[in-house]
Amino acid sequence: MDIKGYLKERAKEIDREIQKRLPKGIPEKLFEAMAYSVMAGGKRLRPLLVLESAKAVGMEDWDSIMDIAVATEFIHTYSLIHDDLPAMDDDDLRRGKPTCHKVYGEAIAILSGDGLQSYAFELISGIKGIEPEKLLKVINLLAHGTGIYGMVGGQAADILHEKENSFNDIQFIHTHKTAKFIQACCEIGAVLGNATQEERQALSNYGLYIGLAFQIQDDILDEIGDEKKLGKKTHKDREKNKLTYPQIYGLEKSRQMAQEYIERAVSQIKDLKDPEILTQLAKYIINREV
Amino acid sequence: MDIKGYLKERAKEIDREIQKRLPKGIPEKLFEAMAYSVMAGGKRLRPLLVLESAKAVGMEDWDSIMDIAVATEFIHTYSLIHDDLPAMDDDDLRRGKPTCHKVYGEAIAILSGDGLQSYAFELISGIKGIEPEKLLKVINLLAHGTGIYGMVGGQAADILHEKENSFNDIQFIHTHKTAKFIQACCEIGAVLGNATQEERQALSNYGLYIGLAFQIQDDILDEIGDEKKLGKKTHKDREKNKLTYPQIYGLEKSRQMAQEYIERAVSQIKDLKDPEILTQLAKYIINREV
Repeated sequence: MDIKGYLKERAKEIDREIQKRLPKGIPEKLFEAMAYSVMAGGKRLRPLLVLESAKAVGMEDWDSIMDIAVATEFIHTYSLIHDDLPAMDDDDLRRGKPTCHKVYGEAIAILSGDGLQSYAFELISGIKGIEPEKLLKVINLLAHGTGIYGMVGGQAADILHEKENSFNDIQFIHTHKTAKFIQACCEIGAVLGNATQEERQALSNYGLYIGLAFQIQDDILDEIGDEKKLGKKTHKDREKNKLTYPQIYGLEKSRQMAQEYIERAVSQIKDLKDPEILTQLAKYIINREV
Repeated sequence: MDIKGYLKERAKEIDREIQKRLPKGIPEKLFEAMAYSVMAGGKRLRPLLVLESAKAVGMEDWDSIMDIAVATEFIHTYSLIHDDLPAMDDDDLRRGKPTCHKVYGEAIAILSGDGLQSYAFELISGIKGIEPEKLLKVINLLAHGTGIYGMVGGQAADILHEKENSFNDIQFIHTHKTAKFIQACCEIGAVLGNATQEERQALSNYGLYIGLAFQIQDDILDEIGDEKKLGKKTHKDREKNKLTYPQIYGLEKSRQMAQEYIERAVSQIKDLKDPEILTQLAKYIINREV
């Protein structure tokens, strides 16, 4: 199958679903800033993983869980807006467009991020037609994977390393900054798709491994990627003295490690009802140029 | 009754309960920064309103809802950390102590705020022993009252006014920036205390009115308050060209408006099972010096 084409189609579909769920309100500039960043494009990997994980365990109709998929992209966008701030990674470009604070100012960028986070939880907690126990589990997985024991903790570790060079466990940083959120998306899909305990564990492991491979590939693309295709500057990590896989292990060994994670991920899900897309998606993660 | 003494005792009790629930983990600096800001003191008004609202409709034992009360203080603290940032209100002092970014740097301050928000939702969504429907309602009220349709929206409106002088509806700013979160806390207490629809509406209205009075009193204290008692600089609003009640209506008229809101608040709850504390608390709000 043409996984690249498939992913492109799905991303377009998810874009439309996100567009429908963009909040509207006052003050307009705040809502405009949120929409600007959410609609700046992207692979929509996290919503896709929610949907495809649910499908892999047998869910046929995605309509009922689309709010949740979209909510994960709101959280992802909040993290990008805050990461790009001058006090954080200080980036002017994201996906080829000026970053949120460049267009709307720092204060509105901070608030847009804050607001996208709370709106994600508002959206999920307001869903009708899914059992409350399940929604609570989804909220818990999402808050955990993106919070102090996940993404926020990893980002803090990454920054503290930068400044003090004392916190040098790259595995901790990559696992927390990137992989735990991706893992949470796969587990959320499992919960929503009524996975058995084994299926859920398999998808959780799958998510962790592709998350790690994804971050290694990100590090590699920062070294050797095409700035035009990526829509952002490369060699940022090196300039900022960030810990990366290529820096520690070299390019070849990093590629090999990413490859191994993908193989482990794929082997985890081989017994699921419908593992085909997730298998192809895992392989695509380390072949992507964007 | 000595409401001032009562509130002091409750605040101490809530302090102990917050302390017990402070998250621990790695990287230590992140967790330290969160604890620093959460434990910097304060009136603990929001947790108190959750608890007292539940009590006012007949709940006798607070233990089961303490996680939720504490979670509201985590959210409140996140908002203070972000509000104090250089790009926002740029404050060096909060409750007489250096603000979070002054001690831990801007990046960790941003992440501490982000993390406190997600941890609040993680905490609530993980509670056992309260019906899932109720917990979802609590999460929804909290996310709504503190998000883009509440606190975050109000803060954005306040900042956009500052810069452009075009968004001049002070009622909108005060309602959203302050009152909606306080209102949410009262409604959350109502839901947890099994309030009837009428009781819940009464507590919701009560929360809105005391929230508005609270913000007017804040504006007044910024004009005439004692810097030492407040633990922060006064006259900030004027310097920053913020819209305040005293600035628009004068001190005397502002006091009168706050008084009227408190009277309305008190009349809302007079038929509740046990309105005494909430009644005294409302009156105290406009007599406080801190």
